[in-house]
Amino acid sequence: MRVSRKSIRNMAMKGVIASAVRTLASSGSSASSTTFTRHLHASAGSKKIVGVFYKANEYAELNPNFLGCEERALGIKDWLESQGHKYIVTDDKDGPDCELDKHIQDLHVLISTPFHPAYVTAERIKKAKNLQLLLTAGVGSDHIDLKAAAAAGLTVAEVTGSNVVSVAEDELMRILILVRNFVPGYTQIVNGEWKVAGIAHRAYDLEGKTVGTVGAGRIGKLLLQRLKPFNCHLLYHDRFKIDPELEQQIGAKFEEDLDAMLPKCDVIVINTPLTEKTRGLFDKERIAKCKKGVLIVNNARGAIMDTQAVVDASSSGHIAGYSGDVWNPQPAPKDHPWRYMPNHAMTPHISGTTIDAQLRYAAGVKDMLDRYFKGEDFPAQNYIVKDGKIASQYQ
Amino acid sequence: MRVSRKSIRNMAMKGVIASAVRTLASSGSSASSTTFTRHLHASAGSKKIVGVFYKANEYAELNPNFLGCEERALGIKDWLESQGHKYIVTDDKDGPDCELDKHIQDLHVLISTPFHPAYVTAERIKKAKNLQLLLTAGVGSDHIDLKAAAAAGLTVAEVTGSNVVSVAEDELMRILILVRNFVPGYTQIVNGEWKVAGIAHRAYDLEGKTVGTVGAGRIGKLLLQRLKPFNCHLLYHDRFKIDPELEQQIGAKFEEDLDAMLPKCDVIVINTPLTEKTRGLFDKERIAKCKKGVLIVNNARGAIMDTQAVVDASSSGHIAGYSGDVWNPQPAPKDHPWRYMPNHAMTPHISGTTIDAQLRYAAGVKDMLDRYFKGEDFPAQNYIVKDGKIASQYQ
Repeated sequence: MRVSRKSIRNMAMKGVIASAVRTLASSGSSASSTTFTRHLHASAGSKKIVGVFYKANEYAELNPNFLGCEERALGIKDWLESQGHKYIVTDDKDGPDCELDKHIQDLHVLISTPFHPAYVTAERIKKAKNLQLLLTAGVGSDHIDLKAAAAAGLTVAEVTGSNVVSVAEDELMRILILVRNFVPGYTQIVNGEWKVAGIAHRAYDLEGKTVGTVGAGRIGKLLLQRLKPFNCHLLYHDRFKIDPELEQQIGAKFEEDLDAMLPKCDVIVINTPLTEKTRGLFDKERIAKCKKGVLIVNNARGAIMDTQAVVDASSSGHIAGYSGDVWNPQPAPKDHPWRYMPNHAMTPHISGTTIDAQLRYAAGVKDMLDRYFKGEDFPAQNYIVKDGKIASQYQ
Repeated sequence: MRVSRKSIRNMAMKGVIASAVRTLASSGSSASSTTFTRHLHASAGSKKIVGVFYKANEYAELNPNFLGCEERALGIKDWLESQGHKYIVTDDKDGPDCELDKHIQDLHVLISTPFHPAYVTAERIKKAKNLQLLLTAGVGSDHIDLKAAAAAGLTVAEVTGSNVVSVAEDELMRILILVRNFVPGYTQIVNGEWKVAGIAHRAYDLEGKTVGTVGAGRIGKLLLQRLKPFNCHLLYHDRFKIDPELEQQIGAKFEEDLDAMLPKCDVIVINTPLTEKTRGLFDKERIAKCKKGVLIVNNARGAIMDTQAVVDASSSGHIAGYSGDVWNPQPAPKDHPWRYMPNHAMTPHISGTTIDAQLRYAAGVKDMLDRYFKGEDFPAQNYIVKDGKIASQYQ
């Protein structure tokens, strides 16, 4: 049998992943197991669980660890069905007659991902009479109306930490892609060209430049740690200062005032959740406060930026490069202007759905479902909405 | 006046560069100043200096620090002419009637770069009756027939260290681009598509993978230092072990036997000069020793690889991704097969010619010319051929 090149690569990468999953599983099991709150006791009997995932089509069979696609549905179908539960999976999440809405009235649990988000609006929550639990396979639950979920007494939980390394690595890649002006170099090659000057006249070293992160939570900290050996000037803005020991080790400087930090940065990385406060945070006025020629990386959420303001500033050159994998909405329509603005290095939403991340968030979702069926608490850091309260990072 | 977006970006990056150049200049001046060897006393009077650089055309005016192009010619024209020397610059370096060959018979000094290499063959050296000094603006002098240069009593020197950080940063970018499967993601966006699965089924975290560098000289060490926070398994093969303290700090493991290291690596980075020993080092047999699905980054020299063997292994999937900026020859012709093989992330030769690097290697070349005119030695680490001897890294 001829093995395809895709599956060969996947074989090569497979071995190193198992240990990461074991680590996650063991850390998860250390959480306390107490009885459950009023909103989330899984009464005995069959549950209807709906999972919304991106479809893999011809790619589904190329990698046995490709758990995050609709076809594999986190690899929990047999396990759920063996316990008498019903598990519906679909990628059809939008529009008037979508598959998700056919099940919204009687589902108990909805699993979705940030990569192909099922937008759980107040209207959908109202229709979902049996809904108890909303699980995000990944990190970032802004596709859910958290206020409405809290008011309805639902529990919302993520697999916190499951893909923070994946995203931080991807951010560092994008910083370098912009600073080094990679994309036009690649484009020249596939177009049969060779014009070093067309790239070099605006390619720089990262060394010595000032990089600021807007948000220094789990991902922001991992990024700063990875930036440390590059000898940059590192700044961060957050509601809280980093632990002083870590701050000193990384050598990053706290900036209490976002608008005071922005004009200092050659590169700005967005690492804040999407909340009511951060929606549209980078509008025309705030982008104007950034240094002329700034490079922006945003793997956080597309709606943190004013879409048109980014296009305008990229067209004028005020933003000299923009790279990220998050859009508003997702999937991005064919006519989304970020596809066509100058000097971008955009991709679909992929940074948190590496094969390694999929194995971790699949394991994390299974763990939470198991606890839900048994009436046990989740690891505390996973809760986004619990007992009517929204987690602090989403407030 | 409307300022173009390109010059705006360049303005933003300009300030941080000056200090790097000052550092370089001061370190250069610490070298001892003794009288010169028999081969390189610049006899009094006008010298004819030829510089071969890539042409910038419409890009030349976009950045005042774009010193490495033919139009700016390292920014030393006025200085040379004010001292009575003649300075010819061209990008026309190949073919029977090229501009370089018109001057080969009476030039005293030839300056060239690895990005647009003037191939200094034994035949050209024979014709160059007045030639004394060959300067490489950058690092890597394999475009010169070093044996012939040594036999003819010429001096060859590079600006050692001028772009090692630039190249190491670029290598880390390419590792991430391959591991994360960036290129098909970008391609989807510009083509109006959105298929997360087409990327995610073969996208991985770098964390936990094994990265091996073939060569751990200046660039290899800088790469390993930058890889340290990524929590990879780091291996290196070289003729020499790294200083034990640095080795321990980085956590990299020495592999004496290249062929024993290769099958352990998920990612292989080439960081060795092109010499008689490394030419064609990665032929069909050696590539077969690599893990199936290996990712290869090569910013060293194209001729270290067997061109067709890389194409074949990329087509079969044995190599799952190949990224680099070096080709054989350069510029790469339109029909070079690396432009068209699957899963590549190639660019023209750019990694060592960032604006920061250009400022450093322009300063380094000027420093060496100044010493040459004054009859002073160069910084010792810059010599590639001196007194008939070839530097150890090229042997």
